Amino acid sequence: MRCPVKATEPVKIAIVGLGKIAHDQHIPSIGRSRAFTLAATVSRGSSLPGFDHYGRLGDLLGARPDVTAVALCVPPQVRFGMAWEALQAGRDVLLEKPPGATVAEVQALADLARAKGRTLFATWHSRFAPAVAPAKDWLAHREVKTARIVWREDVRKWHPGQTWIWQAGGMGVFDPGINALSILTEIMPHPVHLTSAEMEFPENCETPIAARLEFEDAVGGTVSADFDFRQTGPQTWDIAVETSDGSLKLSAGGAKMEIDGRPVDQAAEAEYDGIYARFAELLAAGSSDVDASPLVHVADAFMLGRRIVTDPFHDE
Amino acid sequence: MRCPVKATEPVKIAIVGLGKIAHDQHIPSIGRSRAFTLAATVSRGSSLPGFDHYGRLGDLLGARPDVTAVALCVPPQVRFGMAWEALQAGRDVLLEKPPGATVAEVQALADLARAKGRTLFATWHSRFAPAVAPAKDWLAHREVKTARIVWREDVRKWHPGQTWIWQAGGMGVFDPGINALSILTEIMPHPVHLTSAEMEFPENCETPIAARLEFEDAVGGTVSADFDFRQTGPQTWDIAVETSDGSLKLSAGGAKMEIDGRPVDQAAEAEYDGIYARFAELLAAGSSDVDASPLVHVADAFMLGRRIVTDPFHDE
Repeated sequence: MRCPVKATEPVKIAIVGLGKIAHDQHIPSIGRSRAFTLAATVSRGSSLPGFDHYGRLGDLLGARPDVTAVALCVPPQVRFGMAWEALQAGRDVLLEKPPGATVAEVQALADLARAKGRTLFATWHSRFAPAVAPAKDWLAHREVKTARIVWREDVRKWHPGQTWIWQAGGMGVFDPGINALSILTEIMPHPVHLTSAEMEFPENCETPIAARLEFEDAVGGTVSADFDFRQTGPQTWDIAVETSDGSLKLSAGGAKMEIDGRPVDQAAEAEYDGIYARFAELLAAGSSDVDASPLVHVADAFMLGRRIVTDPFHDE
Repeated sequence: MRCPVKATEPVKIAIVGLGKIAHDQHIPSIGRSRAFTLAATVSRGSSLPGFDHYGRLGDLLGARPDVTAVALCVPPQVRFGMAWEALQAGRDVLLEKPPGATVAEVQALADLARAKGRTLFATWHSRFAPAVAPAKDWLAHREVKTARIVWREDVRKWHPGQTWIWQAGGMGVFDPGINALSILTEIMPHPVHLTSAEMEFPENCETPIAARLEFEDAVGGTVSADFDFRQTGPQTWDIAVETSDGSLKLSAGGAKMEIDGRPVDQAAEAEYDGIYARFAELLAAGSSDVDASPLVHVADAFMLGRRIVTDPFHDE
């Protein structure tokens, strides 16, 4: 069984994978957190000056029993094996999004965490955008008639040279689109399921550059989503919801909210601070948070969707 | 709360959807079962002489409160709405395979059944092939090194004129392949997850005519699957498993088993009798059996898989 975590004693955590997201978000947020202290890093390449470093996860797990939690910021393709190894070694695990390359492996990790009595936190950073919790509260007792997601960004600006995104398993436009789905599945009062999908594949790519999805809930609500990687000029990350009692609009990826056309003030953006605060709560409660539903919707779209071949994509 | 089912009083069940599978399997098995009595049918078209008939599910649910269970043999595209309606009306529900058109809708139904305290049984008929339970027992305490699925059949023989199978959502070769995956997920001692997939799409079809899949479990076992719809001559539905302590081979879709090359006698095939016996057990226990994992693997394959365009397919 887990020992109770004393509020006054920060949890020693290691970051595994020192890429852009670790440097930009995880390291600063852990630095600001009173619940965690960065005790080590694991990476085949670079290390972090002043911090204990290991080239392999197994070395950390063997050498540092005091490091009870790990944050996996490695690519999804290698995440499963590392998460499995860490849980088996009795560590609590935080997963960057998406929590795996397949739905099945996320479910296997959730089962293992339960069996081992450890905390597994499959994070969806967009759920910690400032307007998401207020939007969820506002929708909780309303009847959704329609929701419309428009998630259009310039892949050349946000993913320059990231060829993996165009290879099978790289998800293409679903890499940002899954952020919208993580917000949708958080704020909708009833679960939705996909009813049809259409995806545009550049003739030289294995993943879609655009997708249009239709969902229904079981009580008459419908949701449409328009994901596109070809947006130049202003970028759009909006979710508009019409209910039987007013309308809500989230924009800027969940940073801003309007109710019936009037802006509602929100806190400043602090997605990853929110993630680490939630991880601390889960550790204190000894529970897990593993919601694969955004990834399920993506897999469903690939299974159910029609494919259209479109113009080839070139990064430059 | 549910009332206890008396062993001497058969459950009144209705069949919804009077297609080939209802006539070939469900009606005869219910006829042989002492646990169930066929009380009504629902179909927009044909009826069954001598049985109460309704054109719409809602009419049955309103008129026959004594019919406490329904078996949904309608196509997966319309199954969700009907299952939802029946569960909301307090009925127990049996679903033909696959349990839905998407993974998300299966999870939503499972949640609803739990909330309403009803039994939901997502059936996978191949799991009731005679050698599957013995194979599961034999593997339970062995270490699987490799498993190899070969599932090759002639689509023209088994699915003549079924154009829906080639349309988006129709699954193509995964329609039979999911039967193999339902056996695999039943007999393997540890869960597997897909690591790579390759699918061949005829240039005039929206679904694959062949697929090659690779899986791993978390303890060193690997599984490969070879699904093909272009097999003429003898048909192949085999799963061969190598363990640290002997080998097992299932053939004829799970009807036959060999251990270390020696045939093991099995009972005669009675898949649907087994399904209804299991449904009766679930009703008596007040529990559900909703394992979406075969469908999850198919969705994962569509999400992760590479696509190859191949020769066009024509039915004749």
